[in-house]
Amino acid sequence: MAEHIEITEVGPRDGLQMAHGMMPTAQKSAWIRAMAEAGVAAIEVGSFVPAKIVPQMADTPDVVRDAVTIPGLRVVALVPNLRGAQAAYEAGAHAITIPISASNSHSLANTHKSTEDQIAEVARICAWLAEQPRRVHVEAGVSTAFGCSMEGTVPVDRVVWTASGLSSAGADTLALCDTVGYAHPALVRTTIRAVRDAIGPKLRTLHLHDTLGMGIANALAGLEEGIRAFDGALAGLGGCPFAPGASGNVTTEDLVFMLESMGFSTGIDLQKLLATRALLAAGLPDEKLRGQVALAGIPRTFHKAA
Amino acid sequence: MAEHIEITEVGPRDGLQMAHGMMPTAQKSAWIRAMAEAGVAAIEVGSFVPAKIVPQMADTPDVVRDAVTIPGLRVVALVPNLRGAQAAYEAGAHAITIPISASNSHSLANTHKSTEDQIAEVARICAWLAEQPRRVHVEAGVSTAFGCSMEGTVPVDRVVWTASGLSSAGADTLALCDTVGYAHPALVRTTIRAVRDAIGPKLRTLHLHDTLGMGIANALAGLEEGIRAFDGALAGLGGCPFAPGASGNVTTEDLVFMLESMGFSTGIDLQKLLATRALLAAGLPDEKLRGQVALAGIPRTFHKAA
Repeated sequence: MAEHIEITEVGPRDGLQMAHGMMPTAQKSAWIRAMAEAGVAAIEVGSFVPAKIVPQMADTPDVVRDAVTIPGLRVVALVPNLRGAQAAYEAGAHAITIPISASNSHSLANTHKSTEDQIAEVARICAWLAEQPRRVHVEAGVSTAFGCSMEGTVPVDRVVWTASGLSSAGADTLALCDTVGYAHPALVRTTIRAVRDAIGPKLRTLHLHDTLGMGIANALAGLEEGIRAFDGALAGLGGCPFAPGASGNVTTEDLVFMLESMGFSTGIDLQKLLATRALLAAGLPDEKLRGQVALAGIPRTFHKAA
Repeated sequence: MAEHIEITEVGPRDGLQMAHGMMPTAQKSAWIRAMAEAGVAAIEVGSFVPAKIVPQMADTPDVVRDAVTIPGLRVVALVPNLRGAQAAYEAGAHAITIPISASNSHSLANTHKSTEDQIAEVARICAWLAEQPRRVHVEAGVSTAFGCSMEGTVPVDRVVWTASGLSSAGADTLALCDTVGYAHPALVRTTIRAVRDAIGPKLRTLHLHDTLGMGIANALAGLEEGIRAFDGALAGLGGCPFAPGASGNVTTEDLVFMLESMGFSTGIDLQKLLATRALLAAGLPDEKLRGQVALAGIPRTFHKAA
């Protein structure tokens, strides 16, 4: 029996928020449904941010309400603050993810709050959710965990401090996020070890970008350090605002190809997942779709893990 | 003191042989010279194959004769047979590389000879070179070592058998070549271990293609298995005739970025290496140049290994 890896598809959130066009709500929901039918068990379907800042996410309540009707799908929403968490709760999201930047400059630039103030906001979110009748999983993502376009190197100690604060604030699990895509495999290993030493098994997820072509190799390094949950975006969607032209998230299809080839089970049917690119292309005709497995086709040597 | 990794740039051979256009000899030589000045210590500058089969390589004798005048550069040429080895010797190449396919179907399709007959040809080449006054290093490359577009899975036992035959035939070192780009990290590890068990430290090089986006991750797996020599091609040059549209060799720049970031020394100045892409683009204006480090730029967090 193959060991299971949980893939969270973040394209509808991390991909679409950076897209040139707006994907209509009905097409977004159809794409999400198709990915769920391909076996993607967790999808970050949108974010509860002000529509005037990210107009692509204005329909997130509707997208969440539709997604929660899909049998077996874990519906994740990104929230920036308590108000967003309350909206996600009301829409019925099963889990929320809250990005908190380890780089204080990045935190101030994106949220007008320091890392410390943001950790306090996570505590308020966890306290509010604890009083609600329905359980919602809280994952806190340590953004810029492997470097920052504003501050450069982010010391591992600072990442550990941020992760420890988020753990104490009540987050159920944590993600380490290579927001700008500066990570390399040795740094991934070092950081995972240091954070795990501090917070133990609450460290759950790697969220990687492929800006410098290291995405899949960084996932491999994380896998070898025991990480069993990864974010990815279909077609490598998602730009990096600080590295124009560079590619976005690690490509889900290529990640699934590697994991299944190596004998890990993702629950995802790679052929069906590739077929969902057509829905993405239809909904966002101007977006460049990436991914080598899609380009070359699944090789005849590929065997899905048992 | 950082541990050294030897990078052999194969773009002028594995890249240009698949290119849509012909790079003029003078521009080829200027590009090779620029890469050597960027610190690339070994370059596979061409192949001694019949010009009517690969017209892009017709000027290889001239390219070799120019390259051997570059101080400190190890000049490698690909040869398919004894006649090619003799021509490479006469032109002054320091090393030759001979690709021998572990897949018999692939061997027959490419050379009209079986793997076994090709191993015998390597023995003839090594015997002939042993009688010459000048020493030329012989690296035999086990092609299709991680899968074949014709036969599919190539059993590891077959790869070990091929490698053992090439070692016995007198090759100084061996490379494992992912000719069509089907490898994944677990297979890279398994194959390296099995081949090393059979032939020991003669196993030297990994030659990887990025068809399925696994190139850098496969290099990482090889690195972790103790491999300290890698082929790469600037801008990911080189197509795969059996996977149209798929990308070619692992991108040298991205590989150097990973290795130097991880604290290994390649001797290559990444900024200068990136600058040589302009010479490649000038000589082959219709070719698509790949590589994420070139696209995104070297991040401010990058530090060359000491």
